Amino acid sequence: MESLLARWEAACSRSQALRFVDIGLRGFGQVMFQDNPLTGILFLAAIAWGSIAASVPQVLFAGVLGVVASTLTAIWLKADQAALRAGLYGYNGVLVGLALATFIAPGAALWIYVAMGAGVSTVATLGTASVLKPFGAPALTAPFVAVTWIMLLATYGFAGLSGVGLPAAGVVAPFEPATPLSVGLGAYLVGTFLSISQVFLKASVVSALLFLVGLAISSLPAALLALGGAMLAVAVAHAFGAESDLVTQGLIGFSPVLTAIALGVTFRRPSLNTILYAALGVVFTVIAQAALNVALRPFALPTLTAPFVLVSWMFLLPGERAADSSKAD
Amino acid sequence: MESLLARWEAACSRSQALRFVDIGLRGFGQVMFQDNPLTGILFLAAIAWGSIAASVPQVLFAGVLGVVASTLTAIWLKADQAALRAGLYGYNGVLVGLALATFIAPGAALWIYVAMGAGVSTVATLGTASVLKPFGAPALTAPFVAVTWIMLLATYGFAGLSGVGLPAAGVVAPFEPATPLSVGLGAYLVGTFLSISQVFLKASVVSALLFLVGLAISSLPAALLALGGAMLAVAVAHAFGAESDLVTQGLIGFSPVLTAIALGVTFRRPSLNTILYAALGVVFTVIAQAALNVALRPFALPTLTAPFVLVSWMFLLPGERAADSSKAD
Amino acid sequence: MESLLARWEAACSRSQALRFVDIGLRGFGQVMFQDNPLTGILFLAAIAWGSIAASVPQVLFAGVLGVVASTLTAIWLKADQAALRAGLYGYNGVLVGLALATFIAPGAALWIYVAMGAGVSTVATLGTASVLKPFGAPALTAPFVAVTWIMLLATYGFAGLSGVGLPAAGVVAPFEPATPLSVGLGAYLVGTFLSISQVFLKASVVSALLFLVGLAISSLPAALLALGGAMLAVAVAHAFGAESDLVTQGLIGFSPVLTAIALGVTFRRPSLNTILYAALGVVFTVIAQAALNVALRPFALPTLTAPFVLVSWMFLLPGERAADSSKAD
Repeated sequence: MESLLARWEAACSRSQALRFVDIGLRGFGQVMFQDNPLTGILFLAAIAWGSIAASVPQVLFAGVLGVVASTLTAIWLKADQAALRAGLYGYNGVLVGLALATFIAPGAALWIYVAMGAGVSTVATLGTASVLKPFGAPALTAPFVAVTWIMLLATYGFAGLSGVGLPAAGVVAPFEPATPLSVGLGAYLVGTFLSISQVFLKASVVSALLFLVGLAISSLPAALLALGGAMLAVAVAHAFGAESDLVTQGLIGFSPVLTAIALGVTFRRPSLNTILYAALGVVFTVIAQAALNVALRPFALPTLTAPFVLVSWMFLLPGERAADSSKAD
Repeated sequence: MESLLARWEAACSRSQALRFVDIGLRGFGQVMFQDNPLTGILFLAAIAWGSIAASVPQVLFAGVLGVVASTLTAIWLKADQAALRAGLYGYNGVLVGLALATFIAPGAALWIYVAMGAGVSTVATLGTASVLKPFGAPALTAPFVAVTWIMLLATYGFAGLSGVGLPAAGVVAPFEPATPLSVGLGAYLVGTFLSISQVFLKASVVSALLFLVGLAISSLPAALLALGGAMLAVAVAHAFGAESDLVTQGLIGFSPVLTAIALGVTFRRPSLNTILYAALGVVFTVIAQAALNVALRPFALPTLTAPFVLVSWMFLLPGERAADSSKAD
Repeated sequence: MESLLARWEAACSRSQALRFVDIGLRGFGQVMFQDNPLTGILFLAAIAWGSIAASVPQVLFAGVLGVVASTLTAIWLKADQAALRAGLYGYNGVLVGLALATFIAPGAALWIYVAMGAGVSTVATLGTASVLKPFGAPALTAPFVAVTWIMLLATYGFAGLSGVGLPAAGVVAPFEPATPLSVGLGAYLVGTFLSISQVFLKASVVSALLFLVGLAISSLPAALLALGGAMLAVAVAHAFGAESDLVTQGLIGFSPVLTAIALGVTFRRPSLNTILYAALGVVFTVIAQAALNVALRPFALPTLTAPFVLVSWMFLLPGERAADSSKAD
C-alpha cells in the first residue's frame, strides 16, 4: 500500500489534474481527520453506497461538488499550500454538500446553494483557523456547521428552496418515552455502526464498514477509537434513557465518534490519560448531543456535528498538558 | 469642499464645543464608515427627513442623544484620542438611539434607556476592539447589535417600557408566499433605495438619496458600492423567492449594503478580486439576513445589522491575503 | 483571626488531607471571589442552612461533591498549583453541584451527573482561562453556566433524569403585570438580602446574613459592594417595572451582586471612577437579567449567572484604563 501511495504521489506531481483529484480525495478523508487519498476513495465509496441505497444519488454529487467548490475557493484565495494539499480546505465543503442535499429538495437552486456554501465554508475555515491559532485549537467542522445552519435557516424564508426532512419546530418539552426503553444486542450493534456512518449523514451498516476500513488503512488507532467511541456513546445514551430510535439510528453517536478520534489520537499523543480524557469527552458529547437536539427545536434545525465541535474545543483548549500528564512531568 | 473642511478643522481646533460637534457629526458618518463631518451633516439631514416624514421626530432626537452619550462615555473612559476624534465611539451610539426610539414607545424611561444604552455601547466597543485587535478585525456594529438586543429583550420583562412594532414571537415555520412573487422595475428600484435608508432604520427614498450624496462627497467608491450592493442584494433576494414585502421595503438589503462598503473599500484595497470577494459576501449576507429573520422569531427581535456583522467578520478574518491576491504575489 | 488562619495554614502544610479540605473551602469562598477558608466555612454554613430549611439537603451534598470532583479533576489534569490552592478550580464545581441538585430530582443518575459535570467544569475553566488570558479577562462563572445549561437541556432528552422546578417553555411574550407593582420597605429589604443568597440558589435571609459575614471577614469592601449592588439592583428593577415576585425573591438581583463585587473591588483598583463604572455595570446587569429571563424561555432554562458573566466581561475587556482613569494620567 505504501508503494501504491508513492506511485500515486509521483503521478500527482506530474499532473495538475491528478493533484486536484488527490486533494479532493484527501478532503473526503479529512472528514475523519485522515490525510490519505486511499481513505478518501473508500469514504467516497461508502457515501456512494449510502446515497444510492437510500435513492438519493444527488447527495453523492453534492458531496463531490462541495469538495470541488471549496478547494477551488481555497486556490482562489491563495490559502496555505500545505494545508490545501492535505485536504484541509475540502472536508467542510464535502459536509456542506452532503447536508444541503440531504435537507433541501433537488433543483437548480440546490446546486447554486451547494457551490456557494462550500465556497463560503473555505472562507469560514480560513477565518476560524486564524482566530483559533493562538489557542492551539483546530477549526474542526465548525465552518460546516455555521454555514449549513445559516443556509438551512434561510430556506424557511426563501420560496425558491424547500427543506425536506428538517426537524419540526417547537419549544422545548421533556421527552416522554412512549415505548419501553429496551435495546437488544442486535439493535445495539446497529446503533454503533450507524453512529459511524451518520458522521456523513448516512444510515447504512455497509457504509459504516467501508468507513472503518478506510480509517484502518490510514490509522488503526483511529479506526479503533471510532468503533470504541461509538460503542461507549450508544451504551451511555441508552443508560441515560435517550429515545431508542435516536440511539439505534446512530443519531446520538455520530458526534461522539468524531470526538473519540480527535481527542484520542489526532490532536493528542496516545497514553492512558489521553484515553481516559477522550472517554470523558465522548460521554460529555452524548450529553451535548441530547442538549442540542433540544436547544435547536425552536429553530427546526438539525444539530449536524455541533456537539462534537463544542465538546472537542472545550477539551482541546486546555492544551496538551491537561490531556497527557506524562508530558507535564 | 477641501477648503471648507480645512476651515472647519481650524475652527474646531480653537473651540472645544465645535470639536465636540465635529466628533458627533463624524459619529453619524461612521455608521457607513465615513470619517467626514460633511457626510455626517447629510446623514443627519437624511435621518431628520425620514423621522419627520414618518411622524417619529423622537427617533431623530434619540440619534443625537445617542451620539452625545456614547462620545461623553468615551471621554470619561479616556478612550484613544485618534479613534474618538474620528467618531469611532459615536456610530454605535447613534444606532442604539435610532433603534431604541424606533422600537420603544416614547417617555422618560426611553430617554434614560437611550442614554444608558449608548454609554454601554462605548464600553462594548472598547472591549470588542480589544478582543478583535490581534485578529485584525474591526468591531463594526456588533456593540450596537448586542446592546440593543439586550435592551429590547428586557422590555418584555419590564412593565415600564413597552415595545412598538417589534416582530411577533413564534417558532420557525416555512415561509408560504401568499401572493405571486413578482417585483417590477419600479418596486426593484424602491427596494434598492430603501435598502440604503434602512441602514439607519428609515424607509424613505429621499433619505436614501441624501445618504448616497453624503457617501459620495466623502468616497465615491463607497457610494457606488452601497448602490451596487443594494442592487445585487435585492436581485438575489428576489431570485431566491424572498417575501416581496421584505424585498421592496429594503428589509433584506440593508445589511448587504454595509457588507459591500466594508469588504469592497473600507477594510480592503480595491482590486478585481476584492470586488468579487465583496460580491460573494453580499450574496451570503442576503442568505444570513433570511436566516436571522427566522432564527430571531422565537425571541421576537429584529435582526438589526447582525447579518452584516456576522458575514463581514467571516470574510475579514482570513486577512488581507485572501481578499486581494495581487498583494500575496 | 489572622493567627487562626496562620495556624490553619501551618496545619495544612503538614497534612495533605487538610490541604484538600482547605482547597475545598476556598472553592466555596471563590464563588464570591474570596480566597479564604474561613469565608468558605461560613458560605458552607449558609448553604447548609438554606438547603435544610428548604428540605433539600441533597443540594448541600451536591455542592460538596461538586467541589471535590472539580478539584480532583484539576489535580488529575496537573492544573496550575497556585490557582488550584486558591480554590479557583473549585467554585464552578460548587455551583454545578448546587444547580444540578436544585433542578434535577434526586437519584443515582443525579450523583453521576454532578460528579461528571463538576469534573467537566474544570476542563472548561482551563480552556476558558487559556482563551481569555491574552485579553486580561477572568473565566468568572462561565464554565458553570455552560456546563449546567448543557446538562439541564439534556434532561429533556433523557428519560433517566427528570427536571424539577425548571421554567416552563414558551416563546417570548410581553410581561403583563397582573397585580399593581408596589414593593414596600420590608419587601425591598427582603429582595435585597435574597439577591445575595440567590447567588448560591438559596432564598433565605439567614443564609444571606451568613454570606455577608463571610464576605466581611475576608474583605469589607466586598461585603459592602454586595449589599450596595443588591440594593441598587432591586431598586432599579422595581423602577423599570419588573415583576414584583422576581424582585422580592432576589431573582433579578443575584447576578448584579456578583457584578458589583467583580467590577468594584476584585478585578479593579478602588476609586470613585471604579465605583461609578461598577454602578453602571450593576444597572446594565439588571437589564441583561430581564433580557435573559426572556431569551431563555424557548429553551425552558434558568439564566443561572449568565447575566453577570456577560456584563462583567463587557465591562472588564476594555482593560484597567477604562475602569480607573486616575491610572491613565
